[in-house]
Amino acid sequence: MTAALNPAEPVLATDRARRGGRAGKRAGGSAAFEQPPFRQLKIPFAPTKIISDDELESIHLASLRVLKEIGVDVLHDEARAIMKRHGADVREGTERVRFDSDMILELISHAPAEFTLHARNPAHNVRFGGNNLVISQMASAPNCSDLDNGRRPGNQADYRNFLKLAQMHNILQTTGGYPVEPVDIHPSVRHLECIRDLATLTDKVFHIYSLGKERNVDGIEIARIARGISREQLQDEPSVYTIINTNSPLKLDIPMMEGIIQMSGSGQVVIVTPFTLAGAMAPVTVAGALVQQNAEALSGIAFTQMVKKGAPVGYGGFTSNVDMKSGAPAFGTPEYMKAQMIGGQLARRYQIPYRTSNVCAANTVDAQAAYESVFSLWGAIQGGANFILHGAGWLEGGLRCSYEKTILDIDLLQMVAEFLTPLDLSDDALGFNAIESVGPGGHFFGTQHTQDRYKTAFYSPIISDWRNFETWAEAGSPTAMERANRIWKERLATYEKPYMDPAITEEIDAFVAKRRAEGGAPTDF
Amino acid sequence: MTAALNPAEPVLATDRARRGGRAGKRAGGSAAFEQPPFRQLKIPFAPTKIISDDELESIHLASLRVLKEIGVDVLHDEARAIMKRHGADVREGTERVRFDSDMILELISHAPAEFTLHARNPAHNVRFGGNNLVISQMASAPNCSDLDNGRRPGNQADYRNFLKLAQMHNILQTTGGYPVEPVDIHPSVRHLECIRDLATLTDKVFHIYSLGKERNVDGIEIARIARGISREQLQDEPSVYTIINTNSPLKLDIPMMEGIIQMSGSGQVVIVTPFTLAGAMAPVTVAGALVQQNAEALSGIAFTQMVKKGAPVGYGGFTSNVDMKSGAPAFGTPEYMKAQMIGGQLARRYQIPYRTSNVCAANTVDAQAAYESVFSLWGAIQGGANFILHGAGWLEGGLRCSYEKTILDIDLLQMVAEFLTPLDLSDDALGFNAIESVGPGGHFFGTQHTQDRYKTAFYSPIISDWRNFETWAEAGSPTAMERANRIWKERLATYEKPYMDPAITEEIDAFVAKRRAEGGAPTDF
Repeated sequence: MTAALNPAEPVLATDRARRGGRAGKRAGGSAAFEQPPFRQLKIPFAPTKIISDDELESIHLASLRVLKEIGVDVLHDEARAIMKRHGADVREGTERVRFDSDMILELISHAPAEFTLHARNPAHNVRFGGNNLVISQMASAPNCSDLDNGRRPGNQADYRNFLKLAQMHNILQTTGGYPVEPVDIHPSVRHLECIRDLATLTDKVFHIYSLGKERNVDGIEIARIARGISREQLQDEPSVYTIINTNSPLKLDIPMMEGIIQMSGSGQVVIVTPFTLAGAMAPVTVAGALVQQNAEALSGIAFTQMVKKGAPVGYGGFTSNVDMKSGAPAFGTPEYMKAQMIGGQLARRYQIPYRTSNVCAANTVDAQAAYESVFSLWGAIQGGANFILHGAGWLEGGLRCSYEKTILDIDLLQMVAEFLTPLDLSDDALGFNAIESVGPGGHFFGTQHTQDRYKTAFYSPIISDWRNFETWAEAGSPTAMERANRIWKERLATYEKPYMDPAITEEIDAFVAKRRAEGGAPTDF
Repeated sequence: MTAALNPAEPVLATDRARRGGRAGKRAGGSAAFEQPPFRQLKIPFAPTKIISDDELESIHLASLRVLKEIGVDVLHDEARAIMKRHGADVREGTERVRFDSDMILELISHAPAEFTLHARNPAHNVRFGGNNLVISQMASAPNCSDLDNGRRPGNQADYRNFLKLAQMHNILQTTGGYPVEPVDIHPSVRHLECIRDLATLTDKVFHIYSLGKERNVDGIEIARIARGISREQLQDEPSVYTIINTNSPLKLDIPMMEGIIQMSGSGQVVIVTPFTLAGAMAPVTVAGALVQQNAEALSGIAFTQMVKKGAPVGYGGFTSNVDMKSGAPAFGTPEYMKAQMIGGQLARRYQIPYRTSNVCAANTVDAQAAYESVFSLWGAIQGGANFILHGAGWLEGGLRCSYEKTILDIDLLQMVAEFLTPLDLSDDALGFNAIESVGPGGHFFGTQHTQDRYKTAFYSPIISDWRNFETWAEAGSPTAMERANRIWKERLATYEKPYMDPAITEEIDAFVAKRRAEGGAPTDF
């Protein structure tokens, strides 16, 4: 069993790194702290099937029945026209569209099972699909917080700080949108400023929001300039992605359809993700919510293939339950884990790359934040996720991006990555000679076998405090949250902007200036 | 896919409970709080193979080579004589014993793959082996703590409180030894007082420590009296268990061997668990530590079968890594998870029930305690554990049993149990009619489908705080630990002693009085 590394970065593919050693730890990222190298993660074992193939088929068939008999409301005129041309049941005077099952299955069969997302730094390209795993930073929080200054609305300074943290940490292989919404920038030009930052403060793949045609077109253009390639090359090389959240239940609105038309039409990546909260926008049963998730996802995915056959697309799962007392969404619950794992089974049935999330509903970085997140990661990894969005920073059901949670999540994700690293089972690692040399009643600390390996034998966590109680108490009994607070500040202080050809920087600046002068994207205020 | 419930309690096996409903929630435990019923848990999916069968074989073969070429030191004269009679290579003047591989494999083939552990309350019987999962309270902490009074050495009052919490919570199906060591009771009679409490304050299966023949014999006798059965019946009905931790590396000491002779000889359960910390008592490589774990486990398991063919026995895994800076044991690490999952693969190879743990190294009930514990549970569940020892309460690498961690773990374990409950995939649950009735753009809150189910649709966590930020902040921003603190006190206040026939109580008291008068177990102070 070997871990195939990203072919774009053979320099990091040392044997020690592949076999679980930590020799590559200092090869990537900032010089100021040690971390495992940037690498293409893979899930080396078979995902867990929590329901049988027959049971899976019952969800599949029920969702096809929903698309055929109930249908979805499509609010975008051109999209309905495209659907009609592809044989969907579209009738004059109504937005309702119904889909024949064979048509859906034929269309989605054109979606690629695996593809590369191209970053402006080719060493940060990632593979999406197969048994590859990609992890992104969190996205779209209206608020942010840290232990020193508390909770506050998103703003440009915090926005940039979070991008810097994503750039610095190899385990965050892409950004995921705006980690926090910088509400101090006017919406008409916010996307221009934000995408410029994404393209210059980081050299990783980024996401653009599908909030009207202009924003999609601008985002795609900045990604093209940043990579220094032609429009034709961009068509063949997916370089940005967008999340399309269907308007559950069963509604596809104008910005979504416009986003698919622009993105799929340009060969860029669409991840269709219904937000099907069981008991609110979807049936109260997990099975029913999954039927609806699957129907909505299939309709959106099929539409990407109507726009362009072979367009790269992902299947997103975001089914969870709500707190039936308050209606608030819950995450990292047993129901969420089941939905994650069955979502993976569905996506694999269609051979479409699968996206899920690392989420929680906690209000602070306490035990709840940790257990809901690790349960989410458990569901993701054992569910065969290809893409974990909201990988680092998520608190409060997504209403807040936290600096301390960012560091906690980076640690959790690095632990997961280490768990996924295949075990060294060489004769040397099996250690017969070491066991023989120590013998019954001896100790391994001083042996050559240990001395040769102890520095790199184990993952060294960022946050875990393994001091004994007395030493820990003398140090003021710091909690994990307090340790994370110290760490993000130390790390952020060492950020270095990734290199960009000055001609490209100039071209991006000129584009942003021109589009700002034109007024950016229209708003009604 | 159906969850077979414990046949001893058909009254709880309602269809709703089986299919994931919460109808049975109020059926068991104390009247003061809601909880899922006591039930036989099963892992309904295939465990994860993180290494291939060939790779597993390389560990298996290396451990057989250790037993054959290096051997183990056996400090107990009678045990060596028994081993010699069974064909082991035992030589005069040395404690070293070497084992032929075929002999080991032949012996362990007699160990049963699955058996029942009998509690004095038959509704609390549990199955060990197959795809059954049993969870116990933590064991053997020298200290305990709560948020109000801090950390303190174990004592009888806290010891009894923890037993009460174990009795009250259905998810803790057995106790696991002394949750905290009551050092205020003299060691000569401590086992008598402690086992009397185990047998009377709880009606679940309990553990006895193998610390000399007297303690084993006394524990077995109290278990027999508590069940009100004959010695002959006890021989056929395993009713107590003991953990035998080998003295790693490769040493089997006198109390361990004595424990196996008494327990296996009486048909009671032995769980052989090497404590193989990679880099300390075992090779620094996870593979090497597993080779040694397996060699030690096989030697102990083989010995149980020399004592009595068919004696019920478990394979225990406790391989983890150490903090290479301090030598302190680490738990819930990626290395620990790998060891847990490969431990499961090994145990299944031998068809012997598998025991692992829910452990962490945290000093307080913070994010670290939660993530290390959930990583441990992930390794346990996906590794196909049959028995999770130290299920609730464990902090500080086992040096402390915490009241707040007990409640946190109970919540985590209940969530795991809910995750393991097969999903309802009936037509009704698939919800086509509900989706149709709501239609695009509607809402499910008010539908009959939701109204019929919302009270029992989802697991209702004990600790998770899903209030919005403002409400939570107004309530004083309580952390999970603070919520757990409130909860254990509320719950403990509602404890009710389980019924015991007064004649049996009297018989236990008389036995304890007699043994106390005889001096209990000899000590050197």
